[in-house]
Amino acid sequence: MITSQAKTAPIVSLTTDFGQSDGYVGTMHGVILNICPSAIVTTLSHNIPPQNIQTAAFVLYQAFDYYPEHTVHCVVVDPGVGSRRRAVAIRTGHGIFVGPDNGVFSMVLDATNVLEAVALTNPKYQLSNVSATFHGRDIFAPAAAHIANGIPLERFGPRITDLTQEKFEGKIETGQSRVIHIDRFGNLILDITARHVDKPERVMFTIGQNVIKSLSYTFADVEEGQLVAYVGSNRNHIELAVRNGNAAQALDLQLGDVVQVSK
Amino acid sequence: MITSQAKTAPIVSLTTDFGQSDGYVGTMHGVILNICPSAIVTTLSHNIPPQNIQTAAFVLYQAFDYYPEHTVHCVVVDPGVGSRRRAVAIRTGHGIFVGPDNGVFSMVLDATNVLEAVALTNPKYQLSNVSATFHGRDIFAPAAAHIANGIPLERFGPRITDLTQEKFEGKIETGQSRVIHIDRFGNLILDITARHVDKPERVMFTIGQNVIKSLSYTFADVEEGQLVAYVGSNRNHIELAVRNGNAAQALDLQLGDVVQVSK
Amino acid sequence: MITSQAKTAPIVSLTTDFGQSDGYVGTMHGVILNICPSAIVTTLSHNIPPQNIQTAAFVLYQAFDYYPEHTVHCVVVDPGVGSRRRAVAIRTGHGIFVGPDNGVFSMVLDATNVLEAVALTNPKYQLSNVSATFHGRDIFAPAAAHIANGIPLERFGPRITDLTQEKFEGKIETGQSRVIHIDRFGNLILDITARHVDKPERVMFTIGQNVIKSLSYTFADVEEGQLVAYVGSNRNHIELAVRNGNAAQALDLQLGDVVQVSK
Repeated sequence: MITSQAKTAPIVSLTTDFGQSDGYVGTMHGVILNICPSAIVTTLSHNIPPQNIQTAAFVLYQAFDYYPEHTVHCVVVDPGVGSRRRAVAIRTGHGIFVGPDNGVFSMVLDATNVLEAVALTNPKYQLSNVSATFHGRDIFAPAAAHIANGIPLERFGPRITDLTQEKFEGKIETGQSRVIHIDRFGNLILDITARHVDKPERVMFTIGQNVIKSLSYTFADVEEGQLVAYVGSNRNHIELAVRNGNAAQALDLQLGDVVQVSK
Repeated sequence: MITSQAKTAPIVSLTTDFGQSDGYVGTMHGVILNICPSAIVTTLSHNIPPQNIQTAAFVLYQAFDYYPEHTVHCVVVDPGVGSRRRAVAIRTGHGIFVGPDNGVFSMVLDATNVLEAVALTNPKYQLSNVSATFHGRDIFAPAAAHIANGIPLERFGPRITDLTQEKFEGKIETGQSRVIHIDRFGNLILDITARHVDKPERVMFTIGQNVIKSLSYTFADVEEGQLVAYVGSNRNHIELAVRNGNAAQALDLQLGDVVQVSK
Repeated sequence: MITSQAKTAPIVSLTTDFGQSDGYVGTMHGVILNICPSAIVTTLSHNIPPQNIQTAAFVLYQAFDYYPEHTVHCVVVDPGVGSRRRAVAIRTGHGIFVGPDNGVFSMVLDATNVLEAVALTNPKYQLSNVSATFHGRDIFAPAAAHIANGIPLERFGPRITDLTQEKFEGKIETGQSRVIHIDRFGNLILDITARHVDKPERVMFTIGQNVIKSLSYTFADVEEGQLVAYVGSNRNHIELAVRNGNAAQALDLQLGDVVQVSK
């Protein structure tokens, strides 16, 4: 017989730019298990490009609402560690978020509502020696674990209402969209979504000499090696791909580059 | 006192070519935990070379029977996503397998017996909006989680008996073997096993100018930097290595390349 | 309501040089869950540079005492697999360690006290077929899982008192320190710690043409792109960094390279 543990075991997800060669992530696991031994700890990504807030914002936004609502999402992409940027916890309509207040939650905050936000200032919920350079271990992991244990947000520090919000989304009105994410397959995720496109059969994407003349349903609609645009699995963002190939290499595009869109 | 959770907590293993930079794998974790909160989710590999079915087949075959029998192995190496390839679940003598019917289970099916196989067509066990490009999230993860919850396979869709079976194993009779896997150390795993070799002291491997004149017990039998062949830990497949070096680089061999074998 | 599983579920941490493309790590998970189904298995690193004992020793030392005391840390960085090096288990004041006796535990053993150590010779706690090349699967994972189950160390084999101990720490007296670790960000961790430095405002680091003239509090104390030295988060080891840049690239330094220190 297959039996179950408690239906609502606490979950902490981690999103970092720490890579997986160093012991940083493993140390955070230890800190979390010390404070909340019953936590299930999962990874969204530990390979966010170093200090790339936009990619972290996107990965979090792709994944967060596929998780149970009680999940604590802990994000440590933190170029400002040791400076005055705030450490925050945010309770939303779908999940609780812990990390630096540097814009990394912008896309999630566009997609769900904030119920409560606090600055993480109470030393009671931090490790006893807070380093200048590893707040993931000393502040964010302990906060996530204490929240997973059910400690109310108000105990962590003062309420705040001025969370940093960056605008990463594109404006198709200008005829330009930007590459917001490049995945492992070299698929290019754009900052525009299906709702920006009225007539899928007419929309046209231009990248240098290359033109994609309509929106397909999926990359299997074109031949191997051909360019294709379609509404992707990432919250209806439009993606450019080469079927069974690598569009980022084929088009020589980088994160943030512009794709011309006419409709 | 150390205490235990239920002896038979559900286990879901994941094998994908998603890499670990994107949120794809993390999203699958969320989907699984939403449906089966008690699941222990482990990774066989998320770094299968993009769309490389043979490598996925090999990695699965290396690992599957070291897992408890009730494990659900979920594989998403799926170049045909969005096309007509079937999504399947297979109950075997050792583990349940979920993934695309593209040959990825071939080596496992050679090694164990199929008790039951179904096509995953019942929308009840899929996410409500199935995308064209991310069936890992929308079909395979939900199926694995529902199976982990104990839902019988017959509820997922019609029984099938014509599973795709690829032949990856070599035929030493022709005097040729192929590189079936290259591991992180540059060790070359061949498609022939110990049972293909009658007289270990006489078998000879030729790769261009390089000759290995017998089968050793382990790489510690030769000096540092020397080439060596031995029966590896991967189900008795024969491996070529350089002691404390990288054989793939030294011999300039790629996945699928031929090694001459004479016995 | 959020509920908890047993407060003291067994924990096994893994540190290997197996990478994450092969099925090696996933196989170890299966072996552990077969023997100790309630184990929480975490990763310190699977990307230790192949056969680099010093890096493994450092990563373990960074992380171990952030884990609960009952954690079993299983290390498989094992260039001598198949030779006569011993397999050992070590109970310390903070955690139990399982792995090859090749110096990989040196830095931990400098930092905590050994209560008991044994050689892992009892075949009862090994897989039934021990391969010559994958003791991680056949010896170390089973030992870690049985220890996690509460089996006393004395049952695994004879007590030993001559554990291999390497000296990786630098001697600032000679005016030289060495790079003991390079992290994902290119930060250079030195083998000297804060206690080697009497006057932080006077200490000077020289790397070729580059000079760092004092010890800062953190990298946020200098401008973007500037070199900086500070007491890092890694047990007070001194680190050299470029703010929001990569010091290893900027200074062209490798693991083991010398940095001149004058005080």
